[in-house]
Amino acid sequence: MISLEVVLSPALLHLTDVKGSNVVVIDILRATSTICTAIHEGAESVRAVMSPAEALALKAEGYVTAAERDGAKLEGFDMGNSPFECMNGAVKGKRIALTTTNGTKCIEAVAHAGARNVLSGSFLNLEVLSEWLIADNQRVVMLCAGWKDSVNLEDTLFAGALGSLIVQKTACFVDCDAALMSMDLYACAKDNLTEYLKKSSHYIRLSHLHHEEDMRYCLQHSVIQEITGLLDGEMKKM
Amino acid sequence: MISLEVVLSPALLHLTDVKGSNVVVIDILRATSTICTAIHEGAESVRAVMSPAEALALKAEGYVTAAERDGAKLEGFDMGNSPFECMNGAVKGKRIALTTTNGTKCIEAVAHAGARNVLSGSFLNLEVLSEWLIADNQRVVMLCAGWKDSVNLEDTLFAGALGSLIVQKTACFVDCDAALMSMDLYACAKDNLTEYLKKSSHYIRLSHLHHEEDMRYCLQHSVIQEITGLLDGEMKKM
Repeated sequence: MISLEVVLSPALLHLTDVKGSNVVVIDILRATSTICTAIHEGAESVRAVMSPAEALALKAEGYVTAAERDGAKLEGFDMGNSPFECMNGAVKGKRIALTTTNGTKCIEAVAHAGARNVLSGSFLNLEVLSEWLIADNQRVVMLCAGWKDSVNLEDTLFAGALGSLIVQKTACFVDCDAALMSMDLYACAKDNLTEYLKKSSHYIRLSHLHHEEDMRYCLQHSVIQEITGLLDGEMKKM
Repeated sequence: MISLEVVLSPALLHLTDVKGSNVVVIDILRATSTICTAIHEGAESVRAVMSPAEALALKAEGYVTAAERDGAKLEGFDMGNSPFECMNGAVKGKRIALTTTNGTKCIEAVAHAGARNVLSGSFLNLEVLSEWLIADNQRVVMLCAGWKDSVNLEDTLFAGALGSLIVQKTACFVDCDAALMSMDLYACAKDNLTEYLKKSSHYIRLSHLHHEEDMRYCLQHSVIQEITGLLDGEMKKM
């Protein structure tokens, strides 16, 4: 039986042993949605790195460099953190070195913690991700990236969406209040996710930065069929 | 305008500056409900202490000693952490030295952080507490004690109940996703709080310890009219 656990912030990750678990890293707006999109658009891999300097250093090895802080693209990089920058052949066959405010730090944080798999979670590939996790039949830990360690709505809602799908489809064990909370919140929000999220802090932040189109894109359900996860230290098609 | 913030776990408290704020410490099952009950039943004060040893040391100064760990009363103490132990004149006129698994640590954690007031939150005095906070008209930080730093349902739901009441009664500024989440969750649960909480981890834990009566008591709405908060280092009637 699959057990489900939700970690609402990276600052709570130390309370959960991820060893042997399938860890889904969730940064809906936008890092993990962008990673899924990059792989879907034919990128060879996305390497999550901690600092802009690390990303830049990988340019010499042929990586496309991508960096975002506080919602904005950093100067001097090939890309920021928008899924649209991955489209129209821009990343086909490329390796990308990506650093973002929240999401890539979470991937890095769990990369060496003995997880069975580290997967990129997004509404874009929600359905196939749920099926993959059910087929693998192991404990699932959903790690919400949040905003600078604060809990946020959109990542919590995705955890609820994924948890709810798995619970509907297979026998589950849920002894985690954060998982129960996220599933009940998703039930409140699912009929109009975009409208619901308009009150959230990060939606407001990204709106000020004119990223509405990114948000509408990232909140689409199950339009991508690839599973993205860590293989040899980089996020790749599983 | 009152601004509302919710901290879902003591492990996230460092992200919030509580200076000058009214901090409501929330450990619904059971510490802050028991503290409110003790004051209502005529106790002079409840002193939150970190360790059983500290509580015992205060016996010589005339304190009633109260200690709970993992839901159970500790041997060698006058009381555990049950509101019923405070009734029928048991604590009238007494000072109590209380240490619990979660709640009293939170009081201690914010006691020296420059808060305007540190208040004990409980469903038992929800209505008067909301009115008191509105009258004081300052920023409100609701600190959920959780369970050993993990987020829990019952404390989150109380934060949502208190936040919702304040939002209904006065103009508020809510730029905190955790506050939005807690209010939406409370809206899901409010019609039958006890039934809703039966799936929560701590409800199950306390049921195994035969504390159902305590839980039913602690989930009653607005049956106590006193406000309890820190005065000279002890929780007293405000």
